Amino acid sequence: MHSFTQHTPTEIVFGKNTESKVGELVKKYGGTRVFVVYGGGSVERSGLLERVVQNLKKEGLQVETKGGVKPNPRLDFAREAVKEAIEFNADFTLAVGGGSVIDTAKAVSHGIANPNIDIWEFWSKTTPLTKTSPVGVILTLAAAGSETSDSAVLTNTEIQIKRGLGTDFNRPEFAIMNPELTYTLPKYQVGCGIVDIMMHTLDRYFTLTEGNLLTDEIAEGLLRTVIKCGKTAIKDSHDYDAMSEIMWAGSLSHNGLTGLGAEKDFAPHQLGHELSAKFDIAHGASLSAVWGAWATYCYPVKVKRFVQFADKVWGITGDDEEAVAKEAIAKTVAYFKSLDMPTCFSEAGEVGLKNDDELKQMADGCSYGGTRSIGSFKPCDKEDIYQIYKLANK
Amino acid sequence: MHSFTQHTPTEIVFGKNTESKVGELVKKYGGTRVFVVYGGGSVERSGLLERVVQNLKKEGLQVETKGGVKPNPRLDFAREAVKEAIEFNADFTLAVGGGSVIDTAKAVSHGIANPNIDIWEFWSKTTPLTKTSPVGVILTLAAAGSETSDSAVLTNTEIQIKRGLGTDFNRPEFAIMNPELTYTLPKYQVGCGIVDIMMHTLDRYFTLTEGNLLTDEIAEGLLRTVIKCGKTAIKDSHDYDAMSEIMWAGSLSHNGLTGLGAEKDFAPHQLGHELSAKFDIAHGASLSAVWGAWATYCYPVKVKRFVQFADKVWGITGDDEEAVAKEAIAKTVAYFKSLDMPTCFSEAGEVGLKNDDELKQMADGCSYGGTRSIGSFKPCDKEDIYQIYKLANK
Repeated sequence: MHSFTQHTPTEIVFGKNTESKVGELVKKYGGTRVFVVYGGGSVERSGLLERVVQNLKKEGLQVETKGGVKPNPRLDFAREAVKEAIEFNADFTLAVGGGSVIDTAKAVSHGIANPNIDIWEFWSKTTPLTKTSPVGVILTLAAAGSETSDSAVLTNTEIQIKRGLGTDFNRPEFAIMNPELTYTLPKYQVGCGIVDIMMHTLDRYFTLTEGNLLTDEIAEGLLRTVIKCGKTAIKDSHDYDAMSEIMWAGSLSHNGLTGLGAEKDFAPHQLGHELSAKFDIAHGASLSAVWGAWATYCYPVKVKRFVQFADKVWGITGDDEEAVAKEAIAKTVAYFKSLDMPTCFSEAGEVGLKNDDELKQMADGCSYGGTRSIGSFKPCDKEDIYQIYKLANK
Repeated sequence: MHSFTQHTPTEIVFGKNTESKVGELVKKYGGTRVFVVYGGGSVERSGLLERVVQNLKKEGLQVETKGGVKPNPRLDFAREAVKEAIEFNADFTLAVGGGSVIDTAKAVSHGIANPNIDIWEFWSKTTPLTKTSPVGVILTLAAAGSETSDSAVLTNTEIQIKRGLGTDFNRPEFAIMNPELTYTLPKYQVGCGIVDIMMHTLDRYFTLTEGNLLTDEIAEGLLRTVIKCGKTAIKDSHDYDAMSEIMWAGSLSHNGLTGLGAEKDFAPHQLGHELSAKFDIAHGASLSAVWGAWATYCYPVKVKRFVQFADKVWGITGDDEEAVAKEAIAKTVAYFKSLDMPTCFSEAGEVGLKNDDELKQMADGCSYGGTRSIGSFKPCDKEDIYQIYKLANK
C-alpha cells in the first residue's frame, strides 16, 4: 500500500425529506447570504426550488437564485454567476442539482472569495487557488460524486477545452442526499449516472500497485452493488432501495476511498473529456463510448488485474487469462449497452464515425498537442490515444 | 436503507514517516500550545516521543507532555491531565498512542474547552457537551478506531463504571497513521487490536435492516481483509502490508461507514465493558470472551443474517441454515482462539469462572441495575445478559 492522505470533511445528510434541513445546515456552516445555483426547469417544476428557498428564508437567510446551468458546465455561465453572486454579496453558495450544478457552484464559491481573479486562471493552473467560500449541496442526480469530491470541471467553449481542477477547496461543507429527488430523472440520465459512478472506481481500480486489499475489496463491492442496482434503476427510477444504493455509491466512488494507497489512472476520463468538449455529449456517455476501446488497448499491460476484475466483479474465472480478461471487458461493455449507453463513436450521438484526420485531431487535443500522456496503468501518449480512438471508431 | 448522517472530517495522513508532518498539521488546525498525551514507556524508549516533541518545537510550538495513560482509560487520570493542560494554557491536545491515549486526549480537549465543568458530567450525560478544543493523533496501535471515531470511553474506577460518549466533538482534526509505529507491539496487543477492529464492524453488521447492499459489501470486505491480514500480523508484526491493511481497517471499521443505513447493535461491546470495568482485562480480550456466547444466544432472531455472514465472510454455504449459522459462529470463535485471544471466561485471565451469584451481579451491572436493555439485533435485558454470561462462563 502506498502512502496517502484522505480528507472527506463533507457532512452527509442522507434520506427522505432531508432537504428540509437545508436552512439549518447553511447556518451551521456560517452562511447568511445564500446564492442558489441550479440547472433546468425540472427543479422549478417539481417545486423543489421553491421549497428550498422558503426553507432558507424561514431560517432568516437572504437568498438569490441563478438557474440555467447546462451539462458540461461552462466557463462563461460560471463567470456570469460569479459576477451576480458578488453583486449580491453572497457568503454561501448552494447547489441544487447534479455534477454540473455543483461544479458551477464550486466555481462561484472560488470566485466570491477571489473577486479580482478570473476563475479560469484556477482551472488553467495559471494562478493557484489559495482560498474559497463555503458550498452546500442538495443532490438531485447521482453521478459525478461532486457532492463530496475534491474536483470540479469547467468547459471553456471559446477554445473548446474542458479542464478539471482538483483541490481540497472543492469539498462541500454538506451534501443533502434524498434519493426521492432523483425519481423523475429521464432514463438516459440514470444510465449516464451509473456509468459515471462505475468509472470513478474503474479509473482507480486499474492500477499497477499490488496487494492493496481493503481498497480493492471496497472497489469491487461498490462495482457489484452499482451493477446490480443499476439493472433495477434503469427500469424503475422510483425504486427507493436501488436509487439509494446508487446515490450513496456515487459519493463513495469519487471521494477517494476506492483508490486509496494506489495511483489513479483516469485515462478514460481524459479520453471522454475530449469528446464532451468537441461534441457536447453527456459525460457518462463519453465514458462508456471509450472505455471498451481503452480496456482492449491497455489490458495486456497487466492481464492479471483484469483477471481479478473478471473474478471479483463478474464472477468469470478460467485458466486462459487472456480469454478471461477479454470476457470481462466484453461483459462490462455489454452492461453499458444494456443501459442504452453508447459503447463506440457511432452510438454516441453527435460524435459519429470519424475519418483518420479527425481521429488524429482528437488525439492531438486530448494529448494537449502531444505535450502530455494520460493515465498511469498504461501512460498513453498521442499515438496511443489515436489508437484507442481508432478502436472506438466503429 | 434507513436515513443516516455521516461526518468524517478527520484528515488522514497515512504511510511511512508521516509523523514528521505533525508540527505542520497542528499549526494547520490552529494549535500553538500543545499538550501531548501518551501511555507507557514504549513511546519514550522508541524515541518517538522525543522526535514528536522536537518536530513540534521546530515549528515554533510550545509543548507540555503527560505520560502514563493506562489501558481502559481512567477518569482520575484524565481529570489530572485536564488540570495540567489548563495550567499550561493548552489550546491543542495531541495523542501519541492507541485508543486509550486518544480517548484520554479527547477528554482533555473537552476539559480545556469547559474548564468549569467536571468531565465525568459529559460521560454520565448529566451535562451536554456543547464545545471542545482540537485534538490530533499519532496512532501507534490499530484497534479502537478512536483516531476517526466520534466516541471515547472512560472508566470511573471509584464506582467501577465504564462509559462511552458519542459526539461529533470527539472527531480528531487529523490522524497520522504510520504502520511502522505498530511494529513493536506485543503479540497480545496485536490480537486485541484485530478483535476490536472486527467487532466494530460485527457490532454494526448484525442488524435487522434488510437490503443495505453497499454497506454490507464494505463490511464483509473489511472483515475478510482483517481476517486474512490478521493471520500474517499475529505471526509477524513487521509485515508492512499486513499492518497497513489492519491499521486502515481499524479506522474504517469505526468511522461509521460499515454500518450506514442500519441501526447499530453493540451489545457485545456492552457485555465486554462490564468485564473490563470489573476485571480490568483488555478491551479486545473482553470482546472475544463474550462474542461467541452472544452470537449463540442471539442468532435465532435472524438466522438468515448469520447465513449471509457465513457465506460472504467465511465461504460457508449449505442447505441447513441452522448448521451454517452455527458453523460460522464456531469459525469466528476459532479464529479468535488462533490469535491467542480468550473465547470464554476461564481463558480471560482475571475474569475466570464465576458462580451464579457473580453472573447475576455482572448482569445487573451491565443492565444498569435492570434499567436498560442492550443491543438492537436482539434487545437483551438483564435476564438475557445473565444467560449470555452463563454461556460464556466456561
